[in-house]
Amino acid sequence: MKIALCIEYDGSKFFGWQTQRETPTVQGEVERALSSVADDKVTVLGAGRTDTGVHACGQIAHFQTNRQRSAYSWVMGANTALPEGISVLWAHPVDESFHARFSAQSRSYRYVILNRKIRPAYLAGRVSWFHHSLNEIAMSEASSYLLGRHDFSAFRSAHCGSKNPLKTVEHISIRRKHEWIWLDIRADGFLHHMVRNIVGTLLPVGRGEQDSNWVREILLAKDRTK
Amino acid sequence: MKIALCIEYDGSKFFGWQTQRETPTVQGEVERALSSVADDKVTVLGAGRTDTGVHACGQIAHFQTNRQRSAYSWVMGANTALPEGISVLWAHPVDESFHARFSAQSRSYRYVILNRKIRPAYLAGRVSWFHHSLNEIAMSEASSYLLGRHDFSAFRSAHCGSKNPLKTVEHISIRRKHEWIWLDIRADGFLHHMVRNIVGTLLPVGRGEQDSNWVREILLAKDRTK
Repeated sequence: MKIALCIEYDGSKFFGWQTQRETPTVQGEVERALSSVADDKVTVLGAGRTDTGVHACGQIAHFQTNRQRSAYSWVMGANTALPEGISVLWAHPVDESFHARFSAQSRSYRYVILNRKIRPAYLAGRVSWFHHSLNEIAMSEASSYLLGRHDFSAFRSAHCGSKNPLKTVEHISIRRKHEWIWLDIRADGFLHHMVRNIVGTLLPVGRGEQDSNWVREILLAKDRTK
Repeated sequence: MKIALCIEYDGSKFFGWQTQRETPTVQGEVERALSSVADDKVTVLGAGRTDTGVHACGQIAHFQTNRQRSAYSWVMGANTALPEGISVLWAHPVDESFHARFSAQSRSYRYVILNRKIRPAYLAGRVSWFHHSLNEIAMSEASSYLLGRHDFSAFRSAHCGSKNPLKTVEHISIRRKHEWIWLDIRADGFLHHMVRNIVGTLLPVGRGEQDSNWVREILLAKDRTK
């Protein structure tokens, strides 16, 4: 049978999602925990791979097993075996056609910036920090050029292995409350480092060093070296 | 001259506010950092002493020095010397009559509860967790008995050294958003463990095991062993 999971994690404690031989990763820890519940080797497949430092409040994953356990047992058993920093929020039996990655209709990221002169203390490692004053309205205007279906090659990392750079950004918003700015973005998929490269492109606009049209030019250039 | 400071810190990284010989504390780290800026021994006095695990987004403190530095230099110099998890947000020269503890007109605490079956992952160590369902409206009603000037002996710890158990709670509110419940409380002062004991008393009310009048009875009993 196939089981879908929803996983929350603190990305600062692990070397990203994807299993690696020598270092603790979220996928590796979840597989180890579920394998102990199943008393059998379990392989987990996630909706998306996150890098070190990227947290999740609802990463969807799935696994196959022929062991009979209730959804409650999968959740409680996994959480007992998991280290601090990873929690399975729920488990749910799904149809064989379900696939965490290919069935996903969209993915949402939130990028949080503490915009003040002084570095974060209480939330160090949990938020990004930018000490120059940012104009979030200019950033929001510039971000609107990214809405819709585009070739996002300009915003991918040099190590991005995706075959298709065409992605559809369904929603993007930038809001401020006091010293906090948060960018919410939803798309059918993301290229490697696409969110952080979008933020990196919006920062000079927020500082007033570039106008919003600059973001559009970068997008149209389709060249990450620009 | 006398300088007032505003300090933010991650209480999970230190053994509380107050300087101890062997263990890192917030006061100890701030004194060490300011002493290095002053190139002279600096003693810091805080508005309140917080325990391990209690964070601050604006602890007020003051110190005396005869060294001439700009407010900017105190802040930037201290933050350069401070470890991750403590930031000085601002410094400001104050009148000799100012005293971080005795000039404080009120103190505010926020107690955050993640109210769901699954333990916190992303914010482990930063929030409290309660896995039984809580009725925040019942808790809010019960909390209103604490408003005003009362003898809070029932809510102090066995180790509380305060001479005067009379405190005035000026504001108390309990709100929920999704799985989050937060209690905000402002008073002229707090006894040792008073906030956590108030929360501990409101939890049975939130679970429906006690009615709101129970909180009033505990308050009037003025006896922490109850």
